Amino acid sequence: MRELSVKTDSKIILLVLDGLGGLPLAPSGQTELEAASSPNLDSLAARSDLGLSRPVAAGVSPGSGPGHLALFGYNPLRYVVGRGVLSALGVGFELGQNDLAARLNFATLDESGKISDRRAGRIPSEKGAQLVEMLNENVDLDGVETFVIPEKEYRAVAVFRGEGLSDSLADSDPQRVGLEPLPVKPTDDSPEAERSTALANAFVEQANKILHDQHPANTVLMRGFGMHPGLPSFEEIYELDAAAIASYPMYKGLARLAGMELLKEGEGIVGEFETLKENWDRHDFFFLHVKPTDAAGEDGDFDRKAEVIEEVDAQVPGLLDLGPDALAVTGDHATPALLKSHSWHGVPFLLSSPYTLPTAESFGERTCAGGSLGEFPAEEVMGLLMGHALKLNRYGA
Amino acid sequence: MRELSVKTDSKIILLVLDGLGGLPLAPSGQTELEAASSPNLDSLAARSDLGLSRPVAAGVSPGSGPGHLALFGYNPLRYVVGRGVLSALGVGFELGQNDLAARLNFATLDESGKISDRRAGRIPSEKGAQLVEMLNENVDLDGVETFVIPEKEYRAVAVFRGEGLSDSLADSDPQRVGLEPLPVKPTDDSPEAERSTALANAFVEQANKILHDQHPANTVLMRGFGMHPGLPSFEEIYELDAAAIASYPMYKGLARLAGMELLKEGEGIVGEFETLKENWDRHDFFFLHVKPTDAAGEDGDFDRKAEVIEEVDAQVPGLLDLGPDALAVTGDHATPALLKSHSWHGVPFLLSSPYTLPTAESFGERTCAGGSLGEFPAEEVMGLLMGHALKLNRYGA
Repeated sequence: MRELSVKTDSKIILLVLDGLGGLPLAPSGQTELEAASSPNLDSLAARSDLGLSRPVAAGVSPGSGPGHLALFGYNPLRYVVGRGVLSALGVGFELGQNDLAARLNFATLDESGKISDRRAGRIPSEKGAQLVEMLNENVDLDGVETFVIPEKEYRAVAVFRGEGLSDSLADSDPQRVGLEPLPVKPTDDSPEAERSTALANAFVEQANKILHDQHPANTVLMRGFGMHPGLPSFEEIYELDAAAIASYPMYKGLARLAGMELLKEGEGIVGEFETLKENWDRHDFFFLHVKPTDAAGEDGDFDRKAEVIEEVDAQVPGLLDLGPDALAVTGDHATPALLKSHSWHGVPFLLSSPYTLPTAESFGERTCAGGSLGEFPAEEVMGLLMGHALKLNRYGA
Repeated sequence: MRELSVKTDSKIILLVLDGLGGLPLAPSGQTELEAASSPNLDSLAARSDLGLSRPVAAGVSPGSGPGHLALFGYNPLRYVVGRGVLSALGVGFELGQNDLAARLNFATLDESGKISDRRAGRIPSEKGAQLVEMLNENVDLDGVETFVIPEKEYRAVAVFRGEGLSDSLADSDPQRVGLEPLPVKPTDDSPEAERSTALANAFVEQANKILHDQHPANTVLMRGFGMHPGLPSFEEIYELDAAAIASYPMYKGLARLAGMELLKEGEGIVGEFETLKENWDRHDFFFLHVKPTDAAGEDGDFDRKAEVIEEVDAQVPGLLDLGPDALAVTGDHATPALLKSHSWHGVPFLLSSPYTLPTAESFGERTCAGGSLGEFPAEEVMGLLMGHALKLNRYGA
């Protein structure tokens, strides 16, 4: 891709409805997308290439990290975004290339030093924030800066910033009560892992002292150590000046990992589309992320998910008025209301450009299954968009 | 494949319509293949496996080299055919395993030694041939034989034949006027690259002396250094005695790279099919290449491309009369008249054998998209043909 990509005036939009893919739910027998009244997407589908994208592997339900990495063209098995990194992105922390991040749970140790509650009685978020402040004020580790950022209730994120760190570390959280916390251990024998191990254990030790009188939250458990995945940027790979419009910190963070510029989004779905329009002249690639489809799917709310799709559908004419050279509408994974969770199913994918082979009159899981793109790895989405926007040189003579 | 392939009496035909894949062009909404009146191919499709083959990667438009290598079962990203090699094949030069080939442009140097015209005023082909003769008569390089072969106008091919050469060389052509030609430089630090660099620079130096008084063509620029890709032959991999019928030197050359025997083709498309019939008893694999589909696509001539398909269609009954055990009809890439160029789109693929799962009544991009083979890498075509011809042993017990 690096060798073939060329800078041109053409413009690309990647519109992601989080968790778009669905499943039939009785009695209609239709999926959320099939049941939604979406005349604009249907009309677009009739002029588009359709397919089902597979985020990671057969049967595998992806998290948001791998789901988006694949859509952005990165192999989600090669580029791993640790949970600590996702959490740091999720709280809006600007993660640096050398930062080591981990998730923190405030937890309860009994007098014998064993864990009696892995969630410290689900302390309220305000209490969690106070404890985080105590840690930030008092933790002092040799040679690194330490940042602790509250998430929600008993959850927080810890970030160590310094040279020569590694995320080859095993969790301190034994995942069960009645056991002592594990010492953090290195999972390889590099000096970086050894140093990071020492830092993590020193952090826990200092936290135990600082939190000593804070029953029930008198210790921290660390898990999901992760470092910045060091993705090559969209500019490096595709020569694209990419911008992202997303309302949730985690998706903003994922876009930042790919080197996209974050645009300040307006209010709600309509506001996000307005932001795209206002910035149309300033970039040649736009990633627009719509979250509520996924939230409705997670809630098992079939009708609300369909309504969100209808709300997006109403924005499609305005998007087309901009005249994008290639436009993809898809999801990062399926979140069927039937399952109330992310799932492994193929994700409806629509690609509109002047160079398509339309096969159906509507946008839905089943028309996509019969589309000209068939089932294909989500990792190929960027190649397709680049090809359709005529931004790739020929390979070979 | 090497381990599974067995010699049998069954026979395979791979019929390649260059640039077969197309796109709908208003007002019919049909592609070239869909619009063509091809009753024989349609009838064959109704007894065949259908699919869309992908030559290289999503969104990537392949050149003829990678497109054919993939159809012949070679990974087109692993086996790279340099431009110099393709040019040598294109002029009918029988490239040896140790030959180093490069493209030559006759160009114009001004008094200060800078390039004033990279194409030497587009000298006529006769003049180019004269200059090539001067080079062939007068260039004398240490330890290698040198061949210069005219292409067209200001273009030629240079081949160095000798032991210990390498194509890890960067072009001397700076791709812009107003600059001095670059000295050829090695791109790795092998002794072969060093030696080849010295040879290439000595060649340019001698050419400059020989051409000194030949304004405007008073120098040569070298680019696209390439060596024989060293493909394992069809006999080695598949135990096939393969023959090729092609009317253009480049495709003959690609077939030779795979170890196919070149059959002397008759006149035009009909003549090519006649050649196949005449040689039916002498080989067990036939690659038949039809060029004019691609040429029509490149010209943006939708109707002519459809007519070429019709011309091929008329030859299908004769082909079937031979009783091939497995017959594939496909292209090396798409060349939609809409785009007037090679494109990245899936290529219609039809495989006829007694062991197929028919899904449609006609041969077209959309019936292929819905076919039992789905979208698949072109690199798998040879495996499919070998399987359908019952030439592969079972894998594992």
